[in-house]
Amino acid sequence: MSAHSEPADIAIVGGGVIGLSIAWRAAQQGHRVLVADRQPGSGATHAAAGMLTPIAEAAYAEREIFGLGQASLRRYPGFVAELHAATGLPTGFRQAGTLQVAYDADDQAILAETRVLQESFGVHLQQLTARECRAAEPMLDPSVRGGLLAPDDGSIDPRLLAVALLQAAEGAGARLVRQQVSEIICAAGRAAGIRLADDTVVQAPWIVLAAGWESAAIPGLPDGVAPPVRPVKGQIIRLRTTAEAAGLPPGLLQRTVRGIVRGCSVYLVPRETGELVVGATQEELGSDTRVTAGGVWELLRDARTLVPGITELEVADIVAGLRPGTPDNAPVIGPTEVPGLVLATGHFRAGVLLAPVTADTVAAFLRTGTPDPSWQAFAPGRFPARSRPGSETHRPPGSAADERPRPEAAAWR
Amino acid sequence: MSAHSEPADIAIVGGGVIGLSIAWRAAQQGHRVLVADRQPGSGATHAAAGMLTPIAEAAYAEREIFGLGQASLRRYPGFVAELHAATGLPTGFRQAGTLQVAYDADDQAILAETRVLQESFGVHLQQLTARECRAAEPMLDPSVRGGLLAPDDGSIDPRLLAVALLQAAEGAGARLVRQQVSEIICAAGRAAGIRLADDTVVQAPWIVLAAGWESAAIPGLPDGVAPPVRPVKGQIIRLRTTAEAAGLPPGLLQRTVRGIVRGCSVYLVPRETGELVVGATQEELGSDTRVTAGGVWELLRDARTLVPGITELEVADIVAGLRPGTPDNAPVIGPTEVPGLVLATGHFRAGVLLAPVTADTVAAFLRTGTPDPSWQAFAPGRFPARSRPGSETHRPPGSAADERPRPEAAAWR
Repeated sequence: MSAHSEPADIAIVGGGVIGLSIAWRAAQQGHRVLVADRQPGSGATHAAAGMLTPIAEAAYAEREIFGLGQASLRRYPGFVAELHAATGLPTGFRQAGTLQVAYDADDQAILAETRVLQESFGVHLQQLTARECRAAEPMLDPSVRGGLLAPDDGSIDPRLLAVALLQAAEGAGARLVRQQVSEIICAAGRAAGIRLADDTVVQAPWIVLAAGWESAAIPGLPDGVAPPVRPVKGQIIRLRTTAEAAGLPPGLLQRTVRGIVRGCSVYLVPRETGELVVGATQEELGSDTRVTAGGVWELLRDARTLVPGITELEVADIVAGLRPGTPDNAPVIGPTEVPGLVLATGHFRAGVLLAPVTADTVAAFLRTGTPDPSWQAFAPGRFPARSRPGSETHRPPGSAADERPRPEAAAWR
Repeated sequence: MSAHSEPADIAIVGGGVIGLSIAWRAAQQGHRVLVADRQPGSGATHAAAGMLTPIAEAAYAEREIFGLGQASLRRYPGFVAELHAATGLPTGFRQAGTLQVAYDADDQAILAETRVLQESFGVHLQQLTARECRAAEPMLDPSVRGGLLAPDDGSIDPRLLAVALLQAAEGAGARLVRQQVSEIICAAGRAAGIRLADDTVVQAPWIVLAAGWESAAIPGLPDGVAPPVRPVKGQIIRLRTTAEAAGLPPGLLQRTVRGIVRGCSVYLVPRETGELVVGATQEELGSDTRVTAGGVWELLRDARTLVPGITELEVADIVAGLRPGTPDNAPVIGPTEVPGLVLATGHFRAGVLLAPVTADTVAAFLRTGTPDPSWQAFAPGRFPARSRPGSETHRPPGSAADERPRPEAAAWR
């Protein structure tokens, strides 16, 4: 026997930037929206640096992810303006560009390859000499060999963004329940609601699963439907400039700097508050969120090599978060084979960047029932299905793909 | 008009390990003791690593400090046994030795000089080859060139020690007031009591000033009587071994390791709880207690060079504390020219080590009126007096030394 809560039109599992953005947009459409999260904004959102750099991400990812990121970045100015109008809250959004720099000759060669890749996507990048890099960012080490400037990139403070999104969503009528979701309830082969940690059931014909890396393991889904997301640990350091740094730009830099330093990647994101975020490690260690001596040391080593002035900054915060990675590094967005169940997860390093476009397109789908054309590369069904050990008897119709080989399993298990 | 509290025989200003140890010993003698500290144990005590290494300290200090440290170390086993008997509380005391190691050839030369100095003090040290160092501490980097083992050195957890001392002192009848001391009150040329932040006055014929670096600036003392202590900042990192390190000794090491790494000093103090303390920077920055990117990076760099395995450890805590430094690096212990006023401060890096001997000798002085012979090198009157700006009219009789040159001023201002 379990208590029943007021039913909702849409139950959203997960209150990070993705879940909260969708909640806001869906509530604006007049849907009765419920968001369940034990502690909204405390997952990958809390650890994210907030770079809005589809162009820099394109070095690692596929053309489709780049396109989605670019579409989301274009939506950002309007998105944050609307958010500010609705809540009066700050988000730290700025659009000051990204400077990619190379430290030594080998790094310069990597950066040259990056440039070829990025320009093949149709991106316009300004190539900067060492001298031009220093003119743009006087705090850079004189050894920096050269750089690429992407002037339209932006950044935002993900913690502020989450607070504003929550207030906007609630202001638009969404309801937040600070509880973990213990089960997704399917009935007669379709989504029917969610069960909360206190055993309350919320009936809802639509469920949006936006629980980051934890989306893979929420009980109740038929085999092969849970997205193959895995936790990818990231350690990140927040530094703070203080009165001693008077005369220097807040956060030492004018814009986001991404560096390749002796083959290692590091980024530094300045904020107008004087914060300078240094990130991030990328570790495959399961759900471990320990801040380690090695992680901190590597970040400080590379950041200090690029911007020696950071040594004077105060260490304000060091955290580790878990990004939702997928086998192909692309997000998982759209309807599943279970009618009523929509996925919006697997955003890996780009959840903050992709929040506006994810929210807008998911909300449109919930209104119209028509999947967004941009979702094609991100369809939940694109991965070979995997079985959950010991659950063969619950296999839904049409999931015979279980017998297929799973060559990518090692990569995401 | 100010309220009067119950009078005390002895008012102790400062509740770090020095003030609390004295409080305990004095209360045991039947004195009515009051200790005033806004937050006991939160100063240098909170940041200290707890090395009990008079021998290693002898590399930097004078023969007299070494002798005092050795005397205090000899008292430690009985001191902590008595403390444990009185409170049942742990202190983390262990006597596993200190291994001093050198990383490269230049470091080896420094260590050889250290050995000559230390042996000139009559210390017996075991010289270890690189192989013997690794046999003693298997987690040491294979590059370590050699070492010196001081088998009798100890270590303790200063935070646990402070908790136990406070309980023991209160158990023996001492009274703790969690307030800052706003003034030391002198009347008719002698100590008369203290004023607390809430303006309460505690009358006491004896005052022990044990407020660490803050001892220099407490109002009310005649010119030339306040000890010339200055804050010397130290940043320190507490790492924690976790289940992943099963099979390794707790804290990775068997004993304290002090290293010279490319000319820089670093120490690692293991605890039986699995903690490994890495310290410490030494910075002359006034009362600044910010943890900085540069401080953390340097400590991790040198610690990781000596013991690469620390990279897997969790960062449990990073703090900065302020040690009370003096012009000659030696403590200031004993009576002043103001009858009734006793100093016990300036212990610099050795406050935890020197707590037992300081407490025992100060308590004996409070009982007998006879200064301990060992205090000769640490007498409060050994520094040329300095004037406090604008306070010339309050100059007490006999303080004409104000006109003397003050060659050391630059060093401790």
